[in-house]
Amino acid sequence: MDDIEVEVLAEPELSDPILIEGLPGVGHVGKLAVEHLLEEFESEVVRRVYATEFPPQVTITDGVAELASAELHAVTIADEATDDETDGIDLLVLTGDHQAQTNAGHYRLTEAFLDLAEEIGVQQVFALGGVPTGELVEEPSVLGAVSAGEHIEALEDVGVEFREDEPAGGVVGVSGLMLGLGGRRGLEVACLMGETSGYLVDPKSAQAVLVVLEDVLGFDVSFEALEERAEEMEEVVGKIQEMQDQQGSVPTDDDLRYIG
Amino acid sequence: MDDIEVEVLAEPELSDPILIEGLPGVGHVGKLAVEHLLEEFESEVVRRVYATEFPPQVTITDGVAELASAELHAVTIADEATDDETDGIDLLVLTGDHQAQTNAGHYRLTEAFLDLAEEIGVQQVFALGGVPTGELVEEPSVLGAVSAGEHIEALEDVGVEFREDEPAGGVVGVSGLMLGLGGRRGLEVACLMGETSGYLVDPKSAQAVLVVLEDVLGFDVSFEALEERAEEMEEVVGKIQEMQDQQGSVPTDDDLRYIG
Amino acid sequence: MDDIEVEVLAEPELSDPILIEGLPGVGHVGKLAVEHLLEEFESEVVRRVYATEFPPQVTITDGVAELASAELHAVTIADEATDDETDGIDLLVLTGDHQAQTNAGHYRLTEAFLDLAEEIGVQQVFALGGVPTGELVEEPSVLGAVSAGEHIEALEDVGVEFREDEPAGGVVGVSGLMLGLGGRRGLEVACLMGETSGYLVDPKSAQAVLVVLEDVLGFDVSFEALEERAEEMEEVVGKIQEMQDQQGSVPTDDDLRYIG
Amino acid sequence: MDDIEVEVLAEPELSDPILIEGLPGVGHVGKLAVEHLLEEFESEVVRRVYATEFPPQVTITDGVAELASAELHAVTIADEATDDETDGIDLLVLTGDHQAQTNAGHYRLTEAFLDLAEEIGVQQVFALGGVPTGELVEEPSVLGAVSAGEHIEALEDVGVEFREDEPAGGVVGVSGLMLGLGGRRGLEVACLMGETSGYLVDPKSAQAVLVVLEDVLGFDVSFEALEERAEEMEEVVGKIQEMQDQQGSVPTDDDLRYIG
Repeated sequence: MDDIEVEVLAEPELSDPILIEGLPGVGHVGKLAVEHLLEEFESEVVRRVYATEFPPQVTITDGVAELASAELHAVTIADEATDDETDGIDLLVLTGDHQAQTNAGHYRLTEAFLDLAEEIGVQQVFALGGVPTGELVEEPSVLGAVSAGEHIEALEDVGVEFREDEPAGGVVGVSGLMLGLGGRRGLEVACLMGETSGYLVDPKSAQAVLVVLEDVLGFDVSFEALEERAEEMEEVVGKIQEMQDQQGSVPTDDDLRYIG
Repeated sequence: MDDIEVEVLAEPELSDPILIEGLPGVGHVGKLAVEHLLEEFESEVVRRVYATEFPPQVTITDGVAELASAELHAVTIADEATDDETDGIDLLVLTGDHQAQTNAGHYRLTEAFLDLAEEIGVQQVFALGGVPTGELVEEPSVLGAVSAGEHIEALEDVGVEFREDEPAGGVVGVSGLMLGLGGRRGLEVACLMGETSGYLVDPKSAQAVLVVLEDVLGFDVSFEALEERAEEMEEVVGKIQEMQDQQGSVPTDDDLRYIG
Repeated sequence: MDDIEVEVLAEPELSDPILIEGLPGVGHVGKLAVEHLLEEFESEVVRRVYATEFPPQVTITDGVAELASAELHAVTIADEATDDETDGIDLLVLTGDHQAQTNAGHYRLTEAFLDLAEEIGVQQVFALGGVPTGELVEEPSVLGAVSAGEHIEALEDVGVEFREDEPAGGVVGVSGLMLGLGGRRGLEVACLMGETSGYLVDPKSAQAVLVVLEDVLGFDVSFEALEERAEEMEEVVGKIQEMQDQQGSVPTDDDLRYIG
Repeated sequence: MDDIEVEVLAEPELSDPILIEGLPGVGHVGKLAVEHLLEEFESEVVRRVYATEFPPQVTITDGVAELASAELHAVTIADEATDDETDGIDLLVLTGDHQAQTNAGHYRLTEAFLDLAEEIGVQQVFALGGVPTGELVEEPSVLGAVSAGEHIEALEDVGVEFREDEPAGGVVGVSGLMLGLGGRRGLEVACLMGETSGYLVDPKSAQAVLVVLEDVLGFDVSFEALEERAEEMEEVVGKIQEMQDQQGSVPTDDDLRYIG
């Protein structure tokens, strides 16, 4: 096996496909968002990427092992008005269970993802993720970061916030490198980051990010499933707050960190 | 020395050999199981694998140093009825004291092991290990995971359990990659995982795994030595429980972790 | 992207340029010092260095992402008397937000920096940094270390202290390798280390280092901005000392480590 | 700079030189021992080895930086009776301030050291080090480990102890790989390990190791300097024991670990 190995599963015919990245990260916001897209729309796995940078791990589903990988899914969203796929939007959705584990690995994998996307015709990229606020957020805003200033206005028009020097620590991982490396290739890259506590898996933040994406790209998706998950999480949060009230103490990071 | 270096010690003539992997892991279940096979049957070291991924370490036996390595042993089990080796089962047993220490190292080493096994004619692989339950297990079940769904039924017939989404964290290390990388090569790979607390070296769990292997492959092995070790461990466990009863407290991970 | 990738942004005509390195380190002394130079004098970015050894990270300024990098800036300081740039000093100032994260990465990056500097004509290097004292320093001295003994006298003449076996742990990171690898190339390298507590960002120590540099190279720079920052830090220190007095305890590392 | 870079400083004419390795390790026993040899006999640095695996660090002596390296020193010990160097013993002494920091780095560096030694004619290697006992040792024994069983007897004759399965954890680092990799090259390698607490720099243990080396190789060295250092250490130990007596407690690892 090479350091990075690509399995070609299908050769979709996509028209101006847009790459949507949602790998694991803060609040699992990006991953929840792209998984929701894959559940709501028909999709086809077109590439699977294996890498020696991923953990030496298989996931087991019904007893059958699958090697750690990231996948590119082709999604075609028909035009809402005409219900005609040829008028719709083509997405290339990148997801998976792992990020790389070394600095160099992050760079190499992101380059591989961008290579694959460009081969399939991608010119525009949305990297989805969360931005940690450290406290529970009732109405999560969506922060933006872009590869070039000219892309800001269109995003601000649909409610994306651009704040001076935020996020303070920059953007890390694949989403950060999509911006950095994709931008250097001349791609139009935007990172959409839903505010999230950082302590919980956050379907509400994922929804906020998707609402922006709907507006930018012009499609419609049902949020029922995400809203149900958000309600479940709110019950969890309610129970935690009850426990805190009884203890008369603020929740510590340890109380919250691994819930979800 | 290359990153991985193979020493050829013998060229055994094996008929449809089956690879049995038992490197160190949870409860040392896999390693105990294959060591028991090597003690009970005649065997011959056929390959020794050195790797710069292994710790920079030698083991000392009677003053003589041996460089960290993994070994492939040829084992021929004569047919029980005819006592004729040509009717029996040929195993290629992989064991050693170390796993790799980086992600990429795990991938490279497992690929090397599979290359060697395929050169010797292996088509079928059993990766032996333990699955941690977090508590002492009276009658350990054996969980299974396979490279392809078609192999499940035969294993269920001999009592291997396949549970939905278990083990939850997947399978890691060489056993996991045997499934993942071996499966991608078209080999028939099964991972047999004995339930074990995760705190103690567990000969009873190793025996449970071997009983399954006996049934699948059709051989007979004495378990006297393993049962003795299991009794010794039970004495240790008894003493720990006594100590806990006196202290009126549940054992912590730290009490138990390094015992065995 | 290669492991290290260099973007050429300008080809300045510099006369006997002197490399001034100030990457992040103890008390951010080196980085504060070179940033002050870049603020006080006109400068031009001439090279940008990207590396897979840097964190997989972009910084965000006004919503626009910039990939982790180090930069070489050309600075021309006109002669004080004649105010003529051709009589002045040419500096090549190296700064950035990151150091490498592995041993080998530090070596490779420093070699890359030295390659670039030599191509631009550098023969002499000053690596600026801090040396931790563990306690607040009223009047920070500047310690020196050089690539060859013949460079000591000139530095002692302007107040740089050379102490037997200090700094005790040697010099680490890019500054250390500037000395070690630069010296092996035959460059004249000096490391100037301002004393600093090690707990706080230290503009006063940065100023002490720059005063030495002024004297060695013969230029004049206003310290107003650094002095303002130093005053702000002193207020912070004052508040910490107040808190300690109230608690009647000495400050712990944790109290102080991340302040600034 | 290559991953490993060798500087040739001299081409000594040595007759059947014996490699003596003493890099930093448990109780600094090996390093103390070889440093003592270099102080007591005339020596010449013949090779300096730089490596990107070493820390990115320079040591500073009287203000002058020296890049992290390991050195091979040629030592010629004249025959005691004839005082004739041509009848004496030639040693190649390997020392330095660092070990590698990754598994693969340890393997690569040891191979490099062995390559250099073989080029200079080395057939026999003594790796010097300490073996931790966890308690203060009045009369340290010297444990042995060898690359081949035939070398045991000669060492037992001069008092080296070979114990079954000791040291329990094997031998790690460069000393371990000298045995493992040197043995695979067909060199005669012995590791001599002085018992030492593991908490203190231990000149007494270094002396015990050198006494064995004297007997094996047939040379005489004064131990005055080592004995003085041992006395200094005993004063330190005395003070620690006093402190313990006052506190009525046994010393913890933390009390002792970094003393010396």
